[in-house]
Amino acid sequence: MAKEKKVDQITDMEVDFAQWYTDVCKKAELIDYSGIKGVFIYRPYGYAIWENIQAILDKMFKESGHQNVYMPLLIPESLLQKEKDHVEGFAPECAWVTFGGQEKLEERLCIRPTSETLFCEHFRDIVHSWRDLPVKYNQWCSVLRWEKTSRPFLRHREFLWQEGHTLHASLEEAMEETENQLDCYADFCENYLAMPVVRGRKTDKEKFSGAERTYTIECMMHDRKALQAGTSHYFGDGFTHAFDIHYTDKNNQLAYPHQTSWGLSTRLIGGIIMTHGDNNGLVLPPKVAPVQVVVIPIAQHKEGVLDKARELADRLKKAGIRVKIDESEQSPGWKFAEYEMKGVPLRLEIGPKDIEKEQCVFARRDNGEKSFVSLSELETVAAELLEKVHQGMFERAKKNLTDHTYDAETLEEAKRLQEENGGFIRTMWCGDLACELKMKDEAGMSSRCMPFGELPIGNKCAICGKPAEKLIYWGVAY
Amino acid sequence: MAKEKKVDQITDMEVDFAQWYTDVCKKAELIDYSGIKGVFIYRPYGYAIWENIQAILDKMFKESGHQNVYMPLLIPESLLQKEKDHVEGFAPECAWVTFGGQEKLEERLCIRPTSETLFCEHFRDIVHSWRDLPVKYNQWCSVLRWEKTSRPFLRHREFLWQEGHTLHASLEEAMEETENQLDCYADFCENYLAMPVVRGRKTDKEKFSGAERTYTIECMMHDRKALQAGTSHYFGDGFTHAFDIHYTDKNNQLAYPHQTSWGLSTRLIGGIIMTHGDNNGLVLPPKVAPVQVVVIPIAQHKEGVLDKARELADRLKKAGIRVKIDESEQSPGWKFAEYEMKGVPLRLEIGPKDIEKEQCVFARRDNGEKSFVSLSELETVAAELLEKVHQGMFERAKKNLTDHTYDAETLEEAKRLQEENGGFIRTMWCGDLACELKMKDEAGMSSRCMPFGELPIGNKCAICGKPAEKLIYWGVAY
Repeated sequence: MAKEKKVDQITDMEVDFAQWYTDVCKKAELIDYSGIKGVFIYRPYGYAIWENIQAILDKMFKESGHQNVYMPLLIPESLLQKEKDHVEGFAPECAWVTFGGQEKLEERLCIRPTSETLFCEHFRDIVHSWRDLPVKYNQWCSVLRWEKTSRPFLRHREFLWQEGHTLHASLEEAMEETENQLDCYADFCENYLAMPVVRGRKTDKEKFSGAERTYTIECMMHDRKALQAGTSHYFGDGFTHAFDIHYTDKNNQLAYPHQTSWGLSTRLIGGIIMTHGDNNGLVLPPKVAPVQVVVIPIAQHKEGVLDKARELADRLKKAGIRVKIDESEQSPGWKFAEYEMKGVPLRLEIGPKDIEKEQCVFARRDNGEKSFVSLSELETVAAELLEKVHQGMFERAKKNLTDHTYDAETLEEAKRLQEENGGFIRTMWCGDLACELKMKDEAGMSSRCMPFGELPIGNKCAICGKPAEKLIYWGVAY
Repeated sequence: MAKEKKVDQITDMEVDFAQWYTDVCKKAELIDYSGIKGVFIYRPYGYAIWENIQAILDKMFKESGHQNVYMPLLIPESLLQKEKDHVEGFAPECAWVTFGGQEKLEERLCIRPTSETLFCEHFRDIVHSWRDLPVKYNQWCSVLRWEKTSRPFLRHREFLWQEGHTLHASLEEAMEETENQLDCYADFCENYLAMPVVRGRKTDKEKFSGAERTYTIECMMHDRKALQAGTSHYFGDGFTHAFDIHYTDKNNQLAYPHQTSWGLSTRLIGGIIMTHGDNNGLVLPPKVAPVQVVVIPIAQHKEGVLDKARELADRLKKAGIRVKIDESEQSPGWKFAEYEMKGVPLRLEIGPKDIEKEQCVFARRDNGEKSFVSLSELETVAAELLEKVHQGMFERAKKNLTDHTYDAETLEEAKRLQEENGGFIRTMWCGDLACELKMKDEAGMSSRCMPFGELPIGNKCAICGKPAEKLIYWGVAY
């Protein structure tokens, strides 16, 4: 069957990782290019992954008391300009609407690159008393950032995301929200996408425009580059002052609420591809895979095979598993390769001999392991195997992260480690922007985060040698 | 308790229906105005209705074999212009992006007013063989139409909708899809929103720009005006020729597929408000109500009341009912009015005396009926009552539709009936645009549809008196 495989259609990931990535995006039918540079089409299979991501996160958000809203797509220029740092960060990459029908608009409107300003304007109208707090909103939408370079899922001019926006009476409560939502993202990445994360705080240079603090989860891809997978921001009361959002507190005093925002986007799908994929194509985490089990009838023209295959597919479906049966005229070998390319976590093979023995074959996508399973145990074993696939994927990704996280004492050592191994380099850092820029200039690495809960590995800045208390992760990032 | 009611906060619907409508939108916290004229904010309670609508329709679409995708927000001007009728219909109300960051774009991009052109461009890339057909796609998104007037839910410059786009090998299959999706909308409106519909075909004047045929469902609002609630279009192969979408058919011949599109938007929420609402506020159909049962503890400071109220709320939640308990310090009367305004279908009251008798009170929002219910039957009765509320709402709306649909033999009669009663006027029509325009000019009515399955009521056009075979509905529309 090997000759029928489509493997030769994609580039070897160890030869050209970037081309392999693009090949997988196309061949697995996740995405397509549109007529506008940097803007992509989310095809059904790619979009279905996003729908599964949405369903899980949306449930998490609602369980922690968040409500969905939908704010406008367009932001008047004067509104965007209300918070100085924010507009400086985003205005250069805004797309501007200047005409409505035949008429030139009096004021330019930008397509939202993010919606802090819109939420703030609305918050000003709805928050008056301490009883109105907290406000915990989220929205699912697309945003536009007119960037020069693009790559499927990783950098789009238009991409899909969710953005949470909340207001709280106290700094403590807002900080707690910022942390909780980061934890929610980390939980989601690790327990649903099988992607281990490093949690930490961004440096001032890397934080979100207008935020006081930005927290991040960073993942390591197969090529050992870093992917920022989700961020959570604490704004203090900067925006609420700029937008005049105030309320009467319990002591009848005028007060300004403390604010957060947090976002996660379809770039996560890029992360899934680059964390788990292999030379046969995509490998999808079972919990977000559009198809969890594909049923392939073997010798399907023989009597009883298709009927049995359909029966098994129905049983799995009834057990709550997302299942697809491929009854097409293609050969089993072609089908095997097809669903390997599409990353379906489990393949179920059923042929005449299996039927005789009242068994079927399960093949795991993540490691190729095959097992014979008694049909009486079908549902139980399928569920167990899906869990094992998830665990196996997580452990492999965790090993990649652990094996390729290195400690360095000097910039030279950091640079050498990156050049030789890639991965994350941990050093101490004095906190100066100059040192951060120097690491970028000389070793090509940006700061990823100052991790939570990790012990210092020294007391001197790896770049300037001055006293340093901060442990920091460096890496080459997507 | 009457004096505590908020009823006085909204305008009487019989005095000023338009103002009543706006009051309900605001007071029920469904929607808010944004800083841009004609652009609205979907607030949590309004958006939650849309989420419920989405969940039900999305399941229907998927069960009939449709897949979700996400196409770009922006359409290059040259792409929009590929189909002549289409661009003529939409270009005058497009919002145009002319700058990306600091740079003037070489070609203007419009924000999608609808996405036929984008889907066609993509279809050209993915359809090559008869094996690639049918293609049955849907997308949930927002669209922009730069209209001069606006009203909450009914006419937004930006609104949320779904748009289905499909390709088929034969005319018959495409027509069947067009009809099926109209039936799907009708089923949804009647069985989930309790809104009876008239199904039919639009005249050429009223059809979608670029379509060969447009089918519609028309609803009658409380004020007897018409609301177009959903449309389904058959395109023939006009677009597929214009966009050069072709494939090799089973006989190895070049062929052009037949196309459909169909859409339904958040204006349906406006329809819900105007069909079911009353002078106490919103009345929500149980199947899409964000809260189906609100639990109000009576004398909640008395021992055991809150505990019992929570226990009942938990039981209902476990039974799959969307339930909210209001434990706030407001009086029961205030709470009654609040949730009446918000249209919650059922109110559960539980106080010390009820607890003694092991019962509670259910009050229906739609007709005010109260009943004492044994706690042992809580879940069953709640589910039954929700169904009865739905039925009651449907029957009332159906009566409004039936009572205010009139037949006329002449334009004068049609005009008089509309002036005296409002509602839908049925006449025969010769099919001439001139007569359609005359009805608009002289009687202020647009054609709503040529209904399916209704018998002719004569053989002469009510406007010109010439022979006529077409039965047609006229009305004043939102």
